[in-house]
Amino acid sequence: MTYCCGILVRDGIVMIGDTRTNAGLDNISTFRKLHLFEEPGKRVMALASAGNLSISQTVVSLLSEGIENPETGERERLADAPTMFQAAQRVGRAVRMVYESDAKFMEDTEINFDVSFLFGGQVEGRRLRLFMVYAAGNFIECTTDTPYLQIGEHKYGKPILDRAVNYETDLYDALKIGLISMDSTMRSNLAVGLPIDIAVIRRDTFGIELNYRIMPGEPYFTDLRERWSAALRAAHIAIPRPPYATRPVEQMSIPEAIDTVLPRTGAHANAASAQLTAGQHTAKVLQQQKPKR
Amino acid sequence: MTYCCGILVRDGIVMIGDTRTNAGLDNISTFRKLHLFEEPGKRVMALASAGNLSISQTVVSLLSEGIENPETGERERLADAPTMFQAAQRVGRAVRMVYESDAKFMEDTEINFDVSFLFGGQVEGRRLRLFMVYAAGNFIECTTDTPYLQIGEHKYGKPILDRAVNYETDLYDALKIGLISMDSTMRSNLAVGLPIDIAVIRRDTFGIELNYRIMPGEPYFTDLRERWSAALRAAHIAIPRPPYATRPVEQMSIPEAIDTVLPRTGAHANAASAQLTAGQHTAKVLQQQKPKR
Repeated sequence: MTYCCGILVRDGIVMIGDTRTNAGLDNISTFRKLHLFEEPGKRVMALASAGNLSISQTVVSLLSEGIENPETGERERLADAPTMFQAAQRVGRAVRMVYESDAKFMEDTEINFDVSFLFGGQVEGRRLRLFMVYAAGNFIECTTDTPYLQIGEHKYGKPILDRAVNYETDLYDALKIGLISMDSTMRSNLAVGLPIDIAVIRRDTFGIELNYRIMPGEPYFTDLRERWSAALRAAHIAIPRPPYATRPVEQMSIPEAIDTVLPRTGAHANAASAQLTAGQHTAKVLQQQKPKR
Repeated sequence: MTYCCGILVRDGIVMIGDTRTNAGLDNISTFRKLHLFEEPGKRVMALASAGNLSISQTVVSLLSEGIENPETGERERLADAPTMFQAAQRVGRAVRMVYESDAKFMEDTEINFDVSFLFGGQVEGRRLRLFMVYAAGNFIECTTDTPYLQIGEHKYGKPILDRAVNYETDLYDALKIGLISMDSTMRSNLAVGLPIDIAVIRRDTFGIELNYRIMPGEPYFTDLRERWSAALRAAHIAIPRPPYATRPVEQMSIPEAIDTVLPRTGAHANAASAQLTAGQHTAKVLQQQKPKR
């Protein structure tokens, strides 16, 4: 498994990827999944992968060596794409090439053709852009409305991104929030783990501002995890306990009462409950078990 | 989709279930998925379901009407099971009956036989127990090590449970944390939604202490959501920004340097990087793009 996220804010792009791969739970290794392409001052690209490692590595190889364009006969590498859009198309073409060469054989051994990429960067004179490329080679682009994209094990780390990131977020705050998102994922899924690779690309600099690997025990990330845990603990402790109490049916309006509150007073569920199939039997059971009054 | 969680603490069990069902995104309905069976002072059971609604409803019907035991010839209902273990077995048998009658026809129309249940409660003179029943009819029991079980869309709401709940948690604190878990899930997955049904069973009371439905706009839950959002915001703002900076290869030990930090100084990745397949091509690309010095 893998978790990678890319965050696009006004000041730039943050890319974060873990390094754990696994074939089953008993075969865990470390592979870099965040690949950086840089021609300082001219172009910068970051490509993060999730899914089957043989596919993603082959895609990266193809993009590095170049793929022949059937229309022009030219070998096109990722690094010399004139725009980020055309670069994303090249990622998609490489995925499709691997699909055509490998998918049938993989499916014969019941292995899914599963791969996805985050691809962000900027070419001189062009916009900073962030894409997600699917296993079919098609892709979507990150916009300011939801300024992040995720691949791999995305669910555990999504709530904090949904709450905390917007397009105006500071670039290094975005990195921090991305690391919290990574922390949440690592806590719940063993198949996502340290080291974590991070990259920061500042808009209009056409270079990699930060390229860093967080190793186990690294002080800042350890501190972030402890602070976040402590803050969550304090946050839920500060919320008052629920004041709820079971209320008898009689005190409630009909729509709310239907199979909603099954009172302990012995009052029957009213006839309208028959319309709600899932609740009907419950009400019946209660009726059968309770002494008639 | 659905999200239900059951929390087992020293003082009792909390069961929480949303009520949203959907067939695609354009067909959303409300169905109660949390079913309560109570014979006050003698036994109490709560059954929450996820998955295909026709399966879960049929299982509840079978458990209410009773299933014939082939060995004894007796009709066995959920409500008259002598122990929670035997009751869980009855849930499993009902699932298998539906599988035998329906699964083939469902699979012919490419619908998976997908269902799961949380089943908790206590029979007089016996332990309070919480189970999760799978689509195959087998089941696991919640223990004090990880005092919660989840079905349906479980990932978004798992981190807070992992961090905040333990077996000694107060019963209504457990309910509160379960509601935070539900809130996180609802924010990230539209297929989980209000109203939310909750039930609290206090140990050794053999009755339902709280049976409540949280409707949209309900004041406590609205307040909980706002407080939690504000606390998370404050929590991530309080964490300092990452102090990371790209360091050139020369300053680092070899194992850390391999494909970890690709320096902007133009230094080549060292030869050892060839061992890391995923990173190799990146290093090559960087070498090709950078002017030799």
